[in-house]
Amino acid sequence: MGSYTHQQLEEFLSPCDIAVVGASPNNQWFGNILKNALKAGFGGQFYPVNPRVDEVQGIRAFRTISDLPDGKIDLAILLVKSSIVLETLEKLRKKGITNVLLVSSGFAETGEEGWHMQNRLRQYCTEHCIVLMGPNCLGFINLLEGVSAFCGGMVEGKLIPGAVGVVGQSGGTSEAILTKILKKSVGVSLYLTTGNEAMLTAEDCMEYLVYDESTRIITCFIEEFRDIDKLRQVAFEAARRKIPVIILKIGRSVKGRNAAASHTGALAGNDNIVDGLFKQLGIIRVETIEELAETAAIFSRCRLPKGKSLGICTLSGGLCGLYADLCEKYGIELPSLQEKTIQRLGGLLPEFARPDNPLDVTGSGFLQGLNEIVRSMLEDENLDIIAPIFIPPQDKDDPARFLNESYMSLIDMVEKPVIPIIFREMTDYAEKYLYDKGLYFIEDPDIGLKAVSHLIEYAEFLRHRA
Amino acid sequence: MGSYTHQQLEEFLSPCDIAVVGASPNNQWFGNILKNALKAGFGGQFYPVNPRVDEVQGIRAFRTISDLPDGKIDLAILLVKSSIVLETLEKLRKKGITNVLLVSSGFAETGEEGWHMQNRLRQYCTEHCIVLMGPNCLGFINLLEGVSAFCGGMVEGKLIPGAVGVVGQSGGTSEAILTKILKKSVGVSLYLTTGNEAMLTAEDCMEYLVYDESTRIITCFIEEFRDIDKLRQVAFEAARRKIPVIILKIGRSVKGRNAAASHTGALAGNDNIVDGLFKQLGIIRVETIEELAETAAIFSRCRLPKGKSLGICTLSGGLCGLYADLCEKYGIELPSLQEKTIQRLGGLLPEFARPDNPLDVTGSGFLQGLNEIVRSMLEDENLDIIAPIFIPPQDKDDPARFLNESYMSLIDMVEKPVIPIIFREMTDYAEKYLYDKGLYFIEDPDIGLKAVSHLIEYAEFLRHRA
Repeated sequence: MGSYTHQQLEEFLSPCDIAVVGASPNNQWFGNILKNALKAGFGGQFYPVNPRVDEVQGIRAFRTISDLPDGKIDLAILLVKSSIVLETLEKLRKKGITNVLLVSSGFAETGEEGWHMQNRLRQYCTEHCIVLMGPNCLGFINLLEGVSAFCGGMVEGKLIPGAVGVVGQSGGTSEAILTKILKKSVGVSLYLTTGNEAMLTAEDCMEYLVYDESTRIITCFIEEFRDIDKLRQVAFEAARRKIPVIILKIGRSVKGRNAAASHTGALAGNDNIVDGLFKQLGIIRVETIEELAETAAIFSRCRLPKGKSLGICTLSGGLCGLYADLCEKYGIELPSLQEKTIQRLGGLLPEFARPDNPLDVTGSGFLQGLNEIVRSMLEDENLDIIAPIFIPPQDKDDPARFLNESYMSLIDMVEKPVIPIIFREMTDYAEKYLYDKGLYFIEDPDIGLKAVSHLIEYAEFLRHRA
Repeated sequence: MGSYTHQQLEEFLSPCDIAVVGASPNNQWFGNILKNALKAGFGGQFYPVNPRVDEVQGIRAFRTISDLPDGKIDLAILLVKSSIVLETLEKLRKKGITNVLLVSSGFAETGEEGWHMQNRLRQYCTEHCIVLMGPNCLGFINLLEGVSAFCGGMVEGKLIPGAVGVVGQSGGTSEAILTKILKKSVGVSLYLTTGNEAMLTAEDCMEYLVYDESTRIITCFIEEFRDIDKLRQVAFEAARRKIPVIILKIGRSVKGRNAAASHTGALAGNDNIVDGLFKQLGIIRVETIEELAETAAIFSRCRLPKGKSLGICTLSGGLCGLYADLCEKYGIELPSLQEKTIQRLGGLLPEFARPDNPLDVTGSGFLQGLNEIVRSMLEDENLDIIAPIFIPPQDKDDPARFLNESYMSLIDMVEKPVIPIIFREMTDYAEKYLYDKGLYFIEDPDIGLKAVSHLIEYAEFLRHRA
């Protein structure tokens, strides 16, 4: 690890007793912290510190840091003004508290003066071995351990523990990312925001996730890399462990780079270099929050394909053309079917249907179920991934269930990824059905096929590496 | 008009008494027709024709076409096998029925023999002045008149009458298009499917919509144009009337063109020529069904901007960068704010916030409402469109309402389009709130900003034309 050891960070991310310096009844921060902790199932305790009150949100407050119980506090969350951060760190250190989550803003993101203040902060933490997250961040949620030291108010949905790590330099944006991932019923291991990164960087967090033995997919929102060497090492080790790294890196545009600078004081760098570096390191670059969540979902639920050839089966000729255009846009191959498959499909489809890829089974071609059609495609050696039509049932009595279930039993019989492609509007029932089966599915073909292309490219990267 | 007059088509699309030749209790077609008619509020009557039964779906059937009441039938829907279509047309003609919706497939889309059959069909219709929609189509819904002669089973949602015309060469795909448009609470005037287009073409339908005085936006799904000259004329007249034409034309890829050929017997042509032609004619080209619906929605709910400059206001610095990258991708300008705006914002925002575009009002910058912030941006002469943050409330008591409503009163005071940009997950309440206000909003920034770019480009096209 870089400046911090894995064990240091492990301790930092699993506190039981958390002081909250600057907790106040006059703003939302402490309330947010409590709400998030409740949601995460946190079993530990909070110790608000405020010189003017006896309690905050019904929890006993301490007037000063020195009043805190000795040797008990694992982590301090700082909500105080930037001008008194250094003296507060000093008081914490005297109390033996060296794990600090610094939420306060007013550092490098505000200009030159703040930049100097942040440098002094860094120097202090380095000299005194303080583990510091922030400033200008929202904290973290350790979903696997049920620990939350997070003061954002925008994460929505149930916190599902799982295998996706989420790192964000921007608090607000990463809250949206976490929300979108959870909304897809994809579980998250750790969610970490790093803000201005006076000490702990996104690269450090990625490194931690690569080695934590629980995270299988890493996602990041990045405004600026601070340590390209570490990024290289992390990406190399991630590839060795077959852990895909998915990054939304802003700054393609000049305006985007400026926004990054005034936000977390980042210098966003030349974007073409980022593209080249990512390609070399096998890092998957995405362009939007939606694409990031979609890509996390496909890696969570899909085996890696052996090649880049997709077989699609739908029941609208118009959609065949639409899908074909999108596949070409994203570099997904739609090879011709093998002769034996054409023969078999000839016997299965109505006379006027033409066995091809994409395959239009036609309106009357699927009435007896898709079992044999999907089986023929699964056994076609030209195809590496199969995307069969899925018509979302409204409920368990909907006849559409039959169509879909006709091929579900085949899915575990083969190593090829099977990705249902939704025809008609999605229903809650169907969504749950597919989630329960652990299947990734394509709802919006543009973003869905882009995610498929990421899966293909990553599998190819690992093959070339081996 | 081309082969048919406007009046001929107007009559074709407003029947009261509809014969359904080949209506059968053994398949879903007639049931679908009835369901769709019920949904459309059709006040007319159906006359099933079937040589073997007395009734279909509880409706009295006629054994032969000659048994149908004389002089009463306005339209015949044909569901019979392709091999007996010609003789059926002859019987209908003898009965004085010359408006025919031919649903049956088995023509040009099946290969050479079908192609010849379709040519004979065309010849017959031309000789005998038959108005023919199809073959291999699903029919139409006239939402403004409450008339439906439509046998598809996949259109979902309430049929909302409105100003968007929908034309599709592919039945299944256009059903998905209509569904997605309606799901955005955008109303539709006429929905027309043309299939193989032996006679009536998509160009004819577009022409009809341009002149029908109710349609203000035209959307199409196209596999192949049959009549580029007519397309030019239609686009020219549409531009004169300021009716945007939005087309999803497949066939960018070789596979996509092949799919089109085997689907409706189309020759999809060279795609670069299509791009150039569209640009010249001011036709808006979209790539997916989702983008088509999004673009129809923005044109339904937004004024045309005076230029291509967007002002964004949000509360996450990370999102500022993300939006800036997407704006550059889609050619939307994000100019600097005027000096007067920077001054005004300086007084409105917290000290550490930097007045810029995109504007990060910061977490504490919006607590007193966005009214003055949005007003400053609206009065900035550098900006043509304003996209202020909108936090979706869960219900009418949600405090988030205050933030959004703080700027709603400004919207009608200016000519500039105001496009709320959603922060956090959308709620049903918020969706309805924005629909009721008649506002377009950006939910997914990628597709939303792409739609904004279409709005900008179309406005520019009209300015250059003038």
